[in-house]
Amino acid sequence: MKEKLSVVKIGGNVIENKTELEKFIKLFANLEGLKILVHGGGKLATHLASKLGIESKMVNGRRITDAESPEVITMVYAGLTNKNIVAQLQANQCNAIGLSGADGNSIQAHKRPVKEIDYGFVGDIDGVNSTTISNLIFSGLTPVFCAMSHDGEGQLLNTNADTIASELAIGMGNIYATTLYYCFEKPGVLMDVSDDTSVVKNINTKKYKELLNEGIIADGMLPKLENCFHALNNKVTTVCLGNMNMLDKNNTLFTTLTL
Amino acid sequence: MKEKLSVVKIGGNVIENKTELEKFIKLFANLEGLKILVHGGGKLATHLASKLGIESKMVNGRRITDAESPEVITMVYAGLTNKNIVAQLQANQCNAIGLSGADGNSIQAHKRPVKEIDYGFVGDIDGVNSTTISNLIFSGLTPVFCAMSHDGEGQLLNTNADTIASELAIGMGNIYATTLYYCFEKPGVLMDVSDDTSVVKNINTKKYKELLNEGIIADGMLPKLENCFHALNNKVTTVCLGNMNMLDKNNTLFTTLTL
Repeated sequence: MKEKLSVVKIGGNVIENKTELEKFIKLFANLEGLKILVHGGGKLATHLASKLGIESKMVNGRRITDAESPEVITMVYAGLTNKNIVAQLQANQCNAIGLSGADGNSIQAHKRPVKEIDYGFVGDIDGVNSTTISNLIFSGLTPVFCAMSHDGEGQLLNTNADTIASELAIGMGNIYATTLYYCFEKPGVLMDVSDDTSVVKNINTKKYKELLNEGIIADGMLPKLENCFHALNNKVTTVCLGNMNMLDKNNTLFTTLTL
Repeated sequence: MKEKLSVVKIGGNVIENKTELEKFIKLFANLEGLKILVHGGGKLATHLASKLGIESKMVNGRRITDAESPEVITMVYAGLTNKNIVAQLQANQCNAIGLSGADGNSIQAHKRPVKEIDYGFVGDIDGVNSTTISNLIFSGLTPVFCAMSHDGEGQLLNTNADTIASELAIGMGNIYATTLYYCFEKPGVLMDVSDDTSVVKNINTKKYKELLNEGIIADGMLPKLENCFHALNNKVTTVCLGNMNMLDKNNTLFTTLTL
C-alpha cells in the first residue's frame, strides 16, 4: 500500500494576515505524516509593485505578468513570503525547504501562448519532477512551494497556486496516496452560502452532479470543484475543501471529495 | 579517500552584470564534480531599498540590517538573485536548488550581539547542517546558497557571503575533501597590485608569513587571507583565490592556498 502524502494549498488571505499565518503555521507543523505546502502570494506583490511604481494588471482575476513584474513576483513569492514561511515552520520543528519550480527542476512549464489575452510571464505546467521531490521528502524535509514554475530556458513563470497544488498531488500520486487540501475562507462547500454551518461533508461524483444541477455549486466554486475532480480523476485519493481548521485532527466540519 | 567537493563563492559585482553573470553561469555549470555555489547580493538590495524609500546604512563596509531591511534583503538575495541564478543554471543542465540558511535548517546562526555597533538583523553562524546538505548533493542536486542564515526562532539573518562559503566548506569537510573558491575582481594575490600578471600561484603557511612581513598582503586582502587560512586550519583541503576564470580547467593563473 502506498504511503500517505498531504498536499496543502493556502491562499493569499492567510499569508497577508500575521495572526492568521501564525495560526496556520502551527496547524501545518502539527499535521501528521508526510506533507507538502503550496502558498499563493496575494496582494503583497501588488503592494510592492505599486510602491515601485509598477502597475499590476488583472484580467478575469488573473495577474498579467509583464516584462517588469516577474521580478516583483520572484521577490515576493519566492523570496519574502516563501522564506518567512520556511523560517517560521523551522521555529515550529517542521524541517521545511522552500522551492520554486526551478529548484531541482521540480515544476516544468511553458509560457502561456498569446491568444486573445497576453498573460505575460505566466506558466502552464508540463510536469512535476516526482523523483526529486520524493527524495527531499525521504530525507525528512517538507517542501514548501511558492506559485512559480520555470521554462527550463532560464525564465521563471508566475503560476496559479491552485494548479500547482493539484499538479503536485497528481504527480506525486505515482509514489504516494495523496490527499489534496484546499484551504480557503469558507469551512467547505455550503448548501446555503450565508450559513457557515451548512457544510456538505461528503461529495462524490454522483452528489457533485446533483449539486451542479441544483445550482448549489455556482460562481467561484465551479472552477474550484472542477479542479478537484480533475485531481481525483488523476490518481489523487481525496480532496478536502475548507478553512485552515480542517488541518486540526479534531475538526470534522469540512468537505471531503472522492470519486 | 573522501570524495571532492567544490564550494564556490561569487560576489555582487558579477551578480549585477548580466553579461558577466551569464559567463559565470556557464563556467560554474561546466565545473566538474560535486559543487555548491554561494552568492552575495550586492547593490541590488541597496537599489531596491532606495526605490522603496528605505535608506541603506553601511558601517565599515558592512550593511546595517534594521527593522525594515531584512524584508528587502530576503526579497533580493533569497528571491530575485537566488532564483534567477537557479533558473539559469537549470537552463545550462546544472540541477540547482536555491537555499537560504532556513531551508532544511542548513545554516544555523544567532543575531549578532549589540556592542559598539548594532548591526541589526545580522547573523553569526553557529553551524551548518552537513547531513541535510550532503543528502541534497547525493540526490544529484547542486545547492545554491544566498547570504542568509536563520536563528531557528523564525528570524532570517543577513550573513556575510564569504563567511557562509568558508563555514560551508569547513562543515562539509567532515564528509568531503573540500576546495573553496573565492571569486573576486583580481586574478589572485598579486606581487604588484598594478600588474594583473604578477599572480602568486602558490601560498602555504610559510609563504603567507613572508608575504605578510613584506607588506605584499595588505588592506582588503588581509581579512580575506585570514579567512582562507581559518578554513585551511579547519579541514578545508585547498583554497583558490582569483577571478571567475579560475573555474575554467585550462586556466592556471590564480592563487592556490594550502597549509
